[in-house]
Amino acid sequence: MTSAIVLGGSRGIGKAISDALESIDIDVFATSKNDIDTSNLNSVKGFVENNISTDILILNTGGPVPKKFLDITEDDWKLYHNQLFLGFCTILQNMKINDGGYIFLISSNVIKEPNPKLIISSAYRVAFSEVFKVLSKDFAQKNISCINIAPGPINTERTKELIENVKEYEKSLPMKRLGEPEEIGNFVKSIIENKIKYLTGVTINFDGANSNYVF
Amino acid sequence: MTSAIVLGGSRGIGKAISDALESIDIDVFATSKNDIDTSNLNSVKGFVENNISTDILILNTGGPVPKKFLDITEDDWKLYHNQLFLGFCTILQNMKINDGGYIFLISSNVIKEPNPKLIISSAYRVAFSEVFKVLSKDFAQKNISCINIAPGPINTERTKELIENVKEYEKSLPMKRLGEPEEIGNFVKSIIENKIKYLTGVTINFDGANSNYVF
Amino acid sequence: MTSAIVLGGSRGIGKAISDALESIDIDVFATSKNDIDTSNLNSVKGFVENNISTDILILNTGGPVPKKFLDITEDDWKLYHNQLFLGFCTILQNMKINDGGYIFLISSNVIKEPNPKLIISSAYRVAFSEVFKVLSKDFAQKNISCINIAPGPINTERTKELIENVKEYEKSLPMKRLGEPEEIGNFVKSIIENKIKYLTGVTINFDGANSNYVF
Amino acid sequence: MTSAIVLGGSRGIGKAISDALESIDIDVFATSKNDIDTSNLNSVKGFVENNISTDILILNTGGPVPKKFLDITEDDWKLYHNQLFLGFCTILQNMKINDGGYIFLISSNVIKEPNPKLIISSAYRVAFSEVFKVLSKDFAQKNISCINIAPGPINTERTKELIENVKEYEKSLPMKRLGEPEEIGNFVKSIIENKIKYLTGVTINFDGANSNYVF
Repeated sequence: MTSAIVLGGSRGIGKAISDALESIDIDVFATSKNDIDTSNLNSVKGFVENNISTDILILNTGGPVPKKFLDITEDDWKLYHNQLFLGFCTILQNMKINDGGYIFLISSNVIKEPNPKLIISSAYRVAFSEVFKVLSKDFAQKNISCINIAPGPINTERTKELIENVKEYEKSLPMKRLGEPEEIGNFVKSIIENKIKYLTGVTINFDGANSNYVF
Repeated sequence: MTSAIVLGGSRGIGKAISDALESIDIDVFATSKNDIDTSNLNSVKGFVENNISTDILILNTGGPVPKKFLDITEDDWKLYHNQLFLGFCTILQNMKINDGGYIFLISSNVIKEPNPKLIISSAYRVAFSEVFKVLSKDFAQKNISCINIAPGPINTERTKELIENVKEYEKSLPMKRLGEPEEIGNFVKSIIENKIKYLTGVTINFDGANSNYVF
Repeated sequence: MTSAIVLGGSRGIGKAISDALESIDIDVFATSKNDIDTSNLNSVKGFVENNISTDILILNTGGPVPKKFLDITEDDWKLYHNQLFLGFCTILQNMKINDGGYIFLISSNVIKEPNPKLIISSAYRVAFSEVFKVLSKDFAQKNISCINIAPGPINTERTKELIENVKEYEKSLPMKRLGEPEEIGNFVKSIIENKIKYLTGVTINFDGANSNYVF
Repeated sequence: MTSAIVLGGSRGIGKAISDALESIDIDVFATSKNDIDTSNLNSVKGFVENNISTDILILNTGGPVPKKFLDITEDDWKLYHNQLFLGFCTILQNMKINDGGYIFLISSNVIKEPNPKLIISSAYRVAFSEVFKVLSKDFAQKNISCINIAPGPINTERTKELIENVKEYEKSLPMKRLGEPEEIGNFVKSIIENKIKYLTGVTINFDGANSNYVF
């Protein structure tokens, strides 16, 4: 039976991916912060000792509270360096992804069009995207596909925390609505279900035409 | 019943998409050059007069013979300007895509990393990608998703014409093989089948980790 | 004595570049539409017959009137295909750039972040940028540098035509002002004056921090 | 008199910039590792306490020893997180750049086309580039220009350490040579000398047409 580990699998996009994978009979471990806290390297190391391999890995984690650049403390930088970058590196250095598997990274569209309020997230998520791109060429040799999904405004608790008036905000979006986590969940599911492997080393905006950069 | 028009649907990637869409009971019109020749604007205009609307449109066409810049004639430029750019513009100016529909553009990874031998293709395909990006924001208001797929080396007749020794070439690729047209066909199918709409205004490399640009 | 041909050299950015190059004793031919009309291939061919070589070439031309996609006619497409793309290709296919020379392309920041009102400009300028990138590798072998400058809002007649209320618009810009053509003129001058050659194959946003894409 | 602080100003690109700025009578503080060690946050904090403001700041630092992903230790990540990212953030949070000033970041072309051997550098340099892009919009309001220069292969001690056979390597480059540090030094100088301010929020490849991405 195919196995999957979904980090941050208890809510939002992570939960939607977990649910979608379970619907096609994948054995999903949807982790919560009790299982693994990527901001804590000891927690990460403990987790990978107990979970030494998987077929499918979903690298997903919440983002930081919005802060202006001048208000960000050294502790903030270091915490989110762990949470958004070093925790994921540690996992990929220590966990075995089985041949023919998949790694999905859930990053954010701020990696291409950085957001002043989400400067920490912009910085560390793009840093990991760079690592992920490099590794995709190695993983390709084991028929493991690496797909970076960069969501825009999605209908999650987090978005509601970040956006003051969601109804008004939605009117400003090309699709006049937030994206649904299930759309990302189904997207991930369908790639796996259809055994699409050549889609790898790629960053996919998932933002309802909200971004402005041509690619 | 859902309808689809697949340009260049008689072979290669176009055929694979046609086959995949038919497998989920979509009414597919897989066009050949007899139905519509995008290098000939009169042919395009005739086609759109007879095919005034569709739910799903796949903008797909073959590429030019490789030529060095200094060898490209004025007639070459104008022919492929029609085939790769103006024909598609004419279709989108005249054909109605039904609300909730999909438009897929099959471009090429040369739009991001241009190839000296495929300079015509690089130029006109990126030009249309720019138009497609702009239009995606308008189409979003009608719940129509616009997805630009930028394939790398795919196992088609065309690739065999362009590459002298395919076996040797495959060894140089991260996945040690060409992509299969069916992977793209299934990818397109699964987006439609799963009613994924928020994936729009996006360019998706489909190249087996072969490109080097970070995004 | 070093020679330069500046297309569209009679006004705006072209004039500023001409003036700056003259200030360092370069022999500048600042062309007007009477000398060469890049929208007319016969005019282009006549020009290159009479101007067979140069040390420095500035590829610069005005942009089209803003039009919505659905209002663009076949004649519009073809006219600007010549003016923004094919005219420049014809020049580079027929004019000799002397070893150690420079080619500057004045494109636009709409090549990266396309503008719905400037869809023609976005499409054909990015198409030529693609050609220019490919050619930069060939020109490098002759020590010829190819630099693509992508201006944002610059204080020219054209900007005043495109923007209704310039004073209001300026308040929305990060620098609270338009760029001055002289800044681009001096930039071009200083690269040549300082014999900087390794800056080539590059696209340089010149937009006062107005763009949002990370690069 | 105009003042400049050049980090890593004692050798390579930093020294070339220092020399170029001195040639136009700027009061340059070319720091060495004794003055400030960006890998050590206490050293950084001490430095900014003693150097509270400057007109021109050059953010420049050496890169890490090449290491494969699986060989990178937690200490490596943390050291270079400081050196390539957090040290620079700390400086920009605490040092005053005088109105009308300039900040240049010397990053690397690996931020766009990551290098497997330079994965640490790719990751943290792009992370800081993201921060720098965001800040450029704030600095614009004080007429401070932020310019990210992304060098390719430059003729420095470091390149000679990274490349086994430099002579052979040079043959593979479009310009058949490495770039000279002086070209970057003169480029920086000429922007300042010509009071070019609208060139800001920009990343400039400086690689002799060696990169392949279209922009």
